[in-house]
Formats: sequence, C-alpha cells, structure tokens
Amino acid sequence: MSFIATPEFLHFPQALPLQSGASIRDYTLAYETYGSLNAERSNAVLVCHALNASHHVAGVYAGQDKSEGWWNNMIGPGKPVDTNRFFVIGINNLGSCFGSTGPMHTNPDTGQVYGADFPVVTVEDWVNAQARLLDRLGVQQLAAVLGGSLGGMQALSWTLQYPERVRHAVVVASAPNLNAENIAFNEVARRAIVTDPDFHGGHFYQHGVVPKRGLRIARMIGHITYLSDDVMNAKFGRQLREGLNLKYSTQDIEFQIESYLRYQGDKFSEYFDANTYLLITRALDYFDPARAFGGDLSQALARATAQFLLVSFSTDWRFSPQRSREIVKALLDNRRNVSYAEIDAPHGHDAFLLDDARYMGLISAYFDRIAKEFA
Amino acid sequence: MSFIATPEFLHFPQALPLQSGASIRDYTLAYETYGSLNAERSNAVLVCHALNASHHVAGVYAGQDKSEGWWNNMIGPGKPVDTNRFFVIGINNLGSCFGSTGPMHTNPDTGQVYGADFPVVTVEDWVNAQARLLDRLGVQQLAAVLGGSLGGMQALSWTLQYPERVRHAVVVASAPNLNAENIAFNEVARRAIVTDPDFHGGHFYQHGVVPKRGLRIARMIGHITYLSDDVMNAKFGRQLREGLNLKYSTQDIEFQIESYLRYQGDKFSEYFDANTYLLITRALDYFDPARAFGGDLSQALARATAQFLLVSFSTDWRFSPQRSREIVKALLDNRRNVSYAEIDAPHGHDAFLLDDARYMGLISAYFDRIAKEFA
Repeated sequence: MSFIATPEFLHFPQALPLQSGASIRDYTLAYETYGSLNAERSNAVLVCHALNASHHVAGVYAGQDKSEGWWNNMIGPGKPVDTNRFFVIGINNLGSCFGSTGPMHTNPDTGQVYGADFPVVTVEDWVNAQARLLDRLGVQQLAAVLGGSLGGMQALSWTLQYPERVRHAVVVASAPNLNAENIAFNEVARRAIVTDPDFHGGHFYQHGVVPKRGLRIARMIGHITYLSDDVMNAKFGRQLREGLNLKYSTQDIEFQIESYLRYQGDKFSEYFDANTYLLITRALDYFDPARAFGGDLSQALARATAQFLLVSFSTDWRFSPQRSREIVKALLDNRRNVSYAEIDAPHGHDAFLLDDARYMGLISAYFDRIAKEFA
Repeated sequence: MSFIATPEFLHFPQALPLQSGASIRDYTLAYETYGSLNAERSNAVLVCHALNASHHVAGVYAGQDKSEGWWNNMIGPGKPVDTNRFFVIGINNLGSCFGSTGPMHTNPDTGQVYGADFPVVTVEDWVNAQARLLDRLGVQQLAAVLGGSLGGMQALSWTLQYPERVRHAVVVASAPNLNAENIAFNEVARRAIVTDPDFHGGHFYQHGVVPKRGLRIARMIGHITYLSDDVMNAKFGRQLREGLNLKYSTQDIEFQIESYLRYQGDKFSEYFDANTYLLITRALDYFDPARAFGGDLSQALARATAQFLLVSFSTDWRFSPQRSREIVKALLDNRRNVSYAEIDAPHGHDAFLLDDARYMGLISAYFDRIAKEFA
C-alpha cells in the first residue's frame, strides 16, 4: 500500500541569478514532502530528479492508483529511505514540464510564453533554487541529499555550493561530468528535436503543434543508452514481433526491440516538452565542477565536507562505474569520508530505479546510520 | 602513389530471385578489378563492402586526386592484399546508391523510379548477385573473399552459400548476426529517415526533395557507434568549439564533438540515398545464418569448408570481439581451419578501415600464405 502524496507549490517573486548571467523571476517550484520534520529540523532528506522525473518521488495521488512516484520503491514508510524517520523533500527543477516554471509558462518580462527563450539553467542553478525552497521550508541543513544520474550530479553539487548545509550526499549512477560520447548522444537527440519542422524554433506552442517526431527519436536514443546490452538481449534478443516468418520490410516492425522502442518514443512524445528536453540535456552537458580547476577534480571537491555514499552499477555504460570511481578517488584525495559500492546488476543505467536486494539493502543500511546521528 | 581505378558495369537481364520471394531483373552491377587474373584463374579475391562504401575499393579515379578507394590502405600493389599477385574484385551491392541498380533507378516493370518499392535485399541475395558477376568474369573459385563489418557478413555467407567456390574467408570486425542493441540503433536511424516529412513514403525523388534531416540524424547515430569511448575522449573530450567561455545555448554548437557530428551528418545527407540506408540496415538486421538451425551457429556453419581468418578489435562495441569469437567457436566445433586475432586498437569499429601495423601485418601474412598456394 502506498501513501497519498500531495503536490505543493511555492512562488518566488525575487529574481534568481543564473550561471549564464541571465536571471529568472516570479517563478514557481513544485514540490512534495513525505514524513515530518523533527523538532531539531535535522532529519530532512532532499531527493533530486533526473531527466524524465519530478517532485513526485513517492506515494500515489489520491484516486489515481497507478500514479506511484518515480522512486516509490526506495522512499516511503519502512522503505530504505524511511519516511517514518526522515522528512523527505522532492523538488521539480526549473525548466521542467511537470509543475515548476518552465518553457511552456509565461515570461513575466514579455507576457509571452517562454518557449525557446527560457533561460539555460545549470545543475548549479537548480541547486540554488532548491536551497531557496529549503529556506522557505525552514530546513537549514540536510541530513542527506540523494539523487541518481543527473540527480546525483545535483547531490554532488550541493556539497560544493552549500557544504555546510549537507551532512551526507548519496550519489547513485552518476558522473563528475559527461564524456564525449554522452554529449554526442544528447546532441543527436537535440538535433532530432530542433530539426523537426514542428519545432518552429522552440515556439511551437503558438503554432498548436508539438515536435513529436523529434521527441520520439530522442527518447528512443535515450532508451538504448539506459539499458545494457545484456538486458536488451535477454529481454528482446532477435525475437520477431509476429510469429516466425519474416516480412521483408524496411518500414514495418519486424523485431520486438523495434516495437518496444517505438512504443516508448510514442508515449514520451505525448507528455514531454521539447524545450525542457533541450534544457535538461544541456544542464547535463554543462555540469563539470572540475572545469574551474583546470580539470582537477580533487581540487574541485576540496570544498565538500559532507560524508558520501557513491553507488554504481556494473552494466551501466552511460555512467559507468569508472566515472563514480573518479569521484571516489577525488574525495579520498581530500581525505573525505566515502563509502562506495559497485553493484553487479544486469540492467544498465536503469538499475538505479529498479529493485535489487543488495542495492536497496545498501541504501537502507546507510540511512539507518544517518538516522542514528539524530535519534 | 595510387594506381588508376576504372569502374565497370555489367547488365543482368535475367531475374534474380530474392530471399523475400520477390525478384529483380534487368539490373546492373558496378564493379572494379585490380591486378590480373592468372592463367589458372586461381588468384581472385572478392572484397565485400559495408554500409557507406562501394565497388571503389582501391586506387584513385583518373584526374581525381582525392578519390582513393575506401580500403586503399589495404589493397594495391605491394599492400597487404597485393594486386601484383591477386586479382581483386570490388562489387557494389544491389540497392546501393553508388552505381549498381538501386532505389533511385527505374523499375522495368512499372517504368517508375523504384523509391521505397525497391525490393528488400539480404546478405544472401547480394552474395547470389556477386556469384553471377563472378560467373561473367570467368571466376569459378575465389582464392579469398574479404570483408569488414557488413562486408564480413557477406564473406561468411559466401562460405555457406557457395562453399566450393571459396578457399579462404577473411571476416573482419563482424558478427554472426546483430544483437538487440545493434537492431535498436538501426531502427532509430530508420525512424529518423522515415518520419522526416521530406521522405514522402520513400518517393521523395518525384517531390524534388531529400529527407536530409533524417539522414543527418541517422549518420550521427552511426558515427557514435563506429567510434570507441576512448577515441572520442582522446579526440574531442569536453573541448569547447570556441575558446574558453560557455555560450549557454541549447541549440548553438558548444562542444567540439557536436561540431564533428553535425559536419559528418551534413556531409552524408548530401550524397547518401535514404532508401538505400533503409535497405542496407535491414540487410544487417536480417542476417542470421543460425536462424534456420534454431539458433545453433555451429550447425549453421557446418556447410562451410573454407579456411578462415577472423579479426576483431578490442574497443569495437558495435561488433565486439565476443561476436567474432562466437564465429570462431562455431567453426572450431566443425573442426575447420581458423585463425583468429583480437587486435588491441583504440578506434572502435572504425579500426577495420584504419592503419594499424599489427592489423596490416596480419592480413599481409595471411595473404602471403594464400599466395603460396598458387605460386
């Protein structure tokens, strides 16, 4: 049984300065909280989301049975991040299409829908916006910040931007920056969207169309990179969609994997905003805390004072274990308190969202340890 | 100094039955030959091409300095496949856009350009067409058939379809079939092409347009899979295209890798035919000699009597060494004469086209050995 989650919204009239030099004002952040903040305000856990997710981390919405939050297996009463002990906060990032202010909203400066004019936001900008929201919630210091993939980058960035506000950072299936191949996949996806004639330079809303062709391609590419070779072969292999006979067609679906990818692409194109896709992939591309230190990650992470848990998955080729180990090494160079686990899981990058007894057990044990600090 | 190559053409009035049940008649094959067929007709080497290549394997065209054949480093006088000793034949496959009959030609049955109605051709169909061309050239038995990637699949198929006509098969950077991930990448590329509004169901020629957006995306995806992570990081890493300052833009080029991919996509979309792309990727998807044997590759390869050299490259993740080893194992199960080399090269799948002393030395030594059989 899942508990009932309720989205909340906070408006921020004051301009938020962005890394690009631009700023954004009169914006709204959507968030959810689960559990209760204790009297010492010491049990707050912030959960940061990745590309296709939101503030709806756990629970279900009233009357909507199938609306489980994206990390509902991880967070809730009695779960690894136990909401009977922790006050868990999920925040939807700026530029998203799931509730917080994003490209489909109105720019207060022009009275027009932002569209492609929504300012480029970075991981650092998101963390600043999250910090402001925590101020409003009365949370000065987090027991932990937790995230997977792009969410892990935010968790890492928290420890650098607000070292005094984070006691523990749990960084799952993440990386200190994207490598060339990661950027390349993002770029192909963006080109598919931007060159879709229905994109209209990012102002498709006013044309009453959606660049669905581009979104479908973007999502298909994404899905390939989320899965491991192994799991794709186990799940689909060379299975034909219909019986045993080949159709000998270049355009009809012949293999199950084609059917799966087209379905995922179609579904995604129905709800995801094209401008949000561009913004979030760019935030991924730009994240690189070592950049200001000539590429020296150890120097870059010297500011972090939090304790860390890093987790990677053996078959994740998008953010491979090697990338997590770079973070571990840089933290150890600074003599920080780091735990690291490389989980042998077949599911590729997707593993961070899936049930795996060792993974869940590990997170559970780590949060038990955190809970003891304020129990 | 490269020698002068001259394309030749042979017309085939008689219908070629295809694996799909369809047939194709009145077709032309473009080919080139280098060196001379010896009196015993025992020194012929057939070179099979992959996706973006043709009959123009080696040499340059008269008056066109930069027109080197795609395997000019491998084939020519004094090169690993030495045209002073071997009579080398390059054939452009049916459905290509580089000279042989393809989708942009006229269907003799309708008087219309084939377009998307060009019949689906398979690796087996190509091999049958190649065999007919060899008949016309008076080559009954090949000293060797040689190919990389999709070309390697053709070389393997030769040993199964015409075992008595092949003494040696050299199968480089290839696989006994595509895995789910390979098919998935092909499918995304095809969807990008087919959903480009300029594709017009494959009959874009009559609309005077080309689905360049789709072709660009297809090529960008292809390029990512041809390269290794290592070589991408070494060549591009996170280098910015312009100086040191970020532009903070979702659509402008920011990283060198983006610039490279866009350039490759643009170039490709200027000359490659969209229907050919669909046909060739489908031929890749369909190739699976073990299919008729319930997936048992050892049984499937029992027919082969040729001697084999298989070569793979350590960083090739498109057709990984593991896939070559599957072929080696199946041949050894049949007690065939097999040599296998796994070359430690950083360049990914592309390595099969590049200079590498050990690779070149290996092919050279193997062809020396073949030459001794008829010297």
